[in-house]
Amino acid sequence: MNYQNDLFLRAARGEQVERPPVWLMRQAGRILPQYRALRANFPDFKAFVKTPKAAATATVQPVDELGVDAAIVFSDILVVPEAMGLDYEMIEAKGPKFPKVIENQGDIDQLLEGVAAATHLEYVWDAIAESKKLIDGRIPLIGFAGAPWTIFAYMVEGSGSKTFSVARRMLYQQPEAAHALLQKITTTTIAYLKGQIAAGADLLQIFDSWAGELTPEQYRIFAIPYLQQIADALPEVPKTIFAKGAWFALEDLGELPYQVVGLDWNIPPAFARERTGSHQVLQGNFDPCNLYASPAEIRHNTHEMIRQFGGKHIVNLGHGVYPDTPLDGVRAFVDAVKTYHK
Amino acid sequence: MNYQNDLFLRAARGEQVERPPVWLMRQAGRILPQYRALRANFPDFKAFVKTPKAAATATVQPVDELGVDAAIVFSDILVVPEAMGLDYEMIEAKGPKFPKVIENQGDIDQLLEGVAAATHLEYVWDAIAESKKLIDGRIPLIGFAGAPWTIFAYMVEGSGSKTFSVARRMLYQQPEAAHALLQKITTTTIAYLKGQIAAGADLLQIFDSWAGELTPEQYRIFAIPYLQQIADALPEVPKTIFAKGAWFALEDLGELPYQVVGLDWNIPPAFARERTGSHQVLQGNFDPCNLYASPAEIRHNTHEMIRQFGGKHIVNLGHGVYPDTPLDGVRAFVDAVKTYHK
Repeated sequence: MNYQNDLFLRAARGEQVERPPVWLMRQAGRILPQYRALRANFPDFKAFVKTPKAAATATVQPVDELGVDAAIVFSDILVVPEAMGLDYEMIEAKGPKFPKVIENQGDIDQLLEGVAAATHLEYVWDAIAESKKLIDGRIPLIGFAGAPWTIFAYMVEGSGSKTFSVARRMLYQQPEAAHALLQKITTTTIAYLKGQIAAGADLLQIFDSWAGELTPEQYRIFAIPYLQQIADALPEVPKTIFAKGAWFALEDLGELPYQVVGLDWNIPPAFARERTGSHQVLQGNFDPCNLYASPAEIRHNTHEMIRQFGGKHIVNLGHGVYPDTPLDGVRAFVDAVKTYHK
Repeated sequence: MNYQNDLFLRAARGEQVERPPVWLMRQAGRILPQYRALRANFPDFKAFVKTPKAAATATVQPVDELGVDAAIVFSDILVVPEAMGLDYEMIEAKGPKFPKVIENQGDIDQLLEGVAAATHLEYVWDAIAESKKLIDGRIPLIGFAGAPWTIFAYMVEGSGSKTFSVARRMLYQQPEAAHALLQKITTTTIAYLKGQIAAGADLLQIFDSWAGELTPEQYRIFAIPYLQQIADALPEVPKTIFAKGAWFALEDLGELPYQVVGLDWNIPPAFARERTGSHQVLQGNFDPCNLYASPAEIRHNTHEMIRQFGGKHIVNLGHGVYPDTPLDGVRAFVDAVKTYHK
């Protein structure tokens, strides 16, 4: 498919581009007054996510408002455990909460997996198809899912956590059950992402938000093989892996068939390049708190970051944009990339 | 002073030792039934911390119960902001909460600093003196304080946080005020730690719990210079810096006059050694969740870790021991170190 602006896809494929493309993780959401107005019509976050027309409208708002080079479908990584049969609540300003959690193999046996689970996610596929209509060929659309370890962490821990010690305890005490759960999540995620591609997703990003909680060895055992399976099963589109906090796994991530590796704001560009090798595109890694600075500082620091990456680079933040970020800061960031000259 | 067991101090000074010494961050506290019984006599955590005889009893419990090679005074890093005039509450199972936070230079101007603040911490000095009596020459005692950036983070953010975006915003929006606050915290911390040495602390550990939230550049600007000041002001005893999550700052930490560098469980020993250089002792970095495993696995993995460090090493966890850790796991860990043969 041809896009009026295909900079993002060309960069993701590793092609030489005139300037790096730019988008922001969580660009669709609370930073935009248009989103807050739209969202006010819904009783809760989950109802919103499950309404394809609303999700598609939120997906396209930052395209219209900020002029980013890629859209990302508005959804949540926790739709996957829900589709597998583990319900969650999204508590405003606190985060997700699972009333029931996975404790043992018996719990795992009861979960749906693969296509049987993914069919419950038709509303996300519909949101993607709807978004494509609204974008109308302007720019590509990113689909996404949580990485198996991160989804596992929520399903076992039951909520966010400072330590994820309950989820991590299972890796030590019930490693076979842990692998069984990770495999079910992986199989479901693959079916889910295949549906996203069929619906029109041009690139897929995998978010491993809690990667940084594992030891390097655990990441090799409980994360990398499942990331590999996902990438192998989806050769049709380019893929991005964003493993937050997993600086220690960059060499392993560099060997996986993901075209793009996302970086958090702790990782110096030269370090990431050295560890991942020369063939992948790096994405990131502006400090989200830097968007609280003045537009002049944002411009200066954005240009400095682009210089440090020195090519094969998609500009983004090192984390999702924080809800209280001033819109002027976000605009200054996007504009700084667009006006960058080598 | 001579100790019956001075292994910890000899190792901290970089001397060749017969086996690595072992202690655990948060060894004094909720993992011990004796602590829970003692603590039940006090209305709240702060009342407990402010009672020197109780704090000293808690300090010595793991010495008697676990046979560790060093004691650490039972206290909390947030006593420092309180002594400066910023009161906090410790909410059971949730963590600290500051009813009032620091927002600007005007707030900073009102804080006490240096000796005027530190004199409010006499109860910690008394707890150290009391602990020394109870330890009675068996092993050395560690004193401690929070690193300036971590104390700053709590004083500005007002509580723990997933992002510390309020505290980090001040670094971008009010850098001069941020430096003023960091300097007041530093000056107070130095006076406080001088009192700890006078009371009998044999080594001082600085906890930079939120180091991993900063960018490498911010860590160089807002953390390293204050850590340097603290070390320079306290030449009398060996010092340990534990900057959790600051893998990216290991080269800078390696140049500071701290004899020991603490490591979290993400950092491979060889990586830390390469970055810090050859002269410092490394402390850590067993995964606290590994203590949920069987005693046999704990023993195997502890020995494997010791082999990987290969000397100049103090055994510890990569984080404070989690409250629900089985005591048998802790014992297996300590015993594994004591029975280690090269």
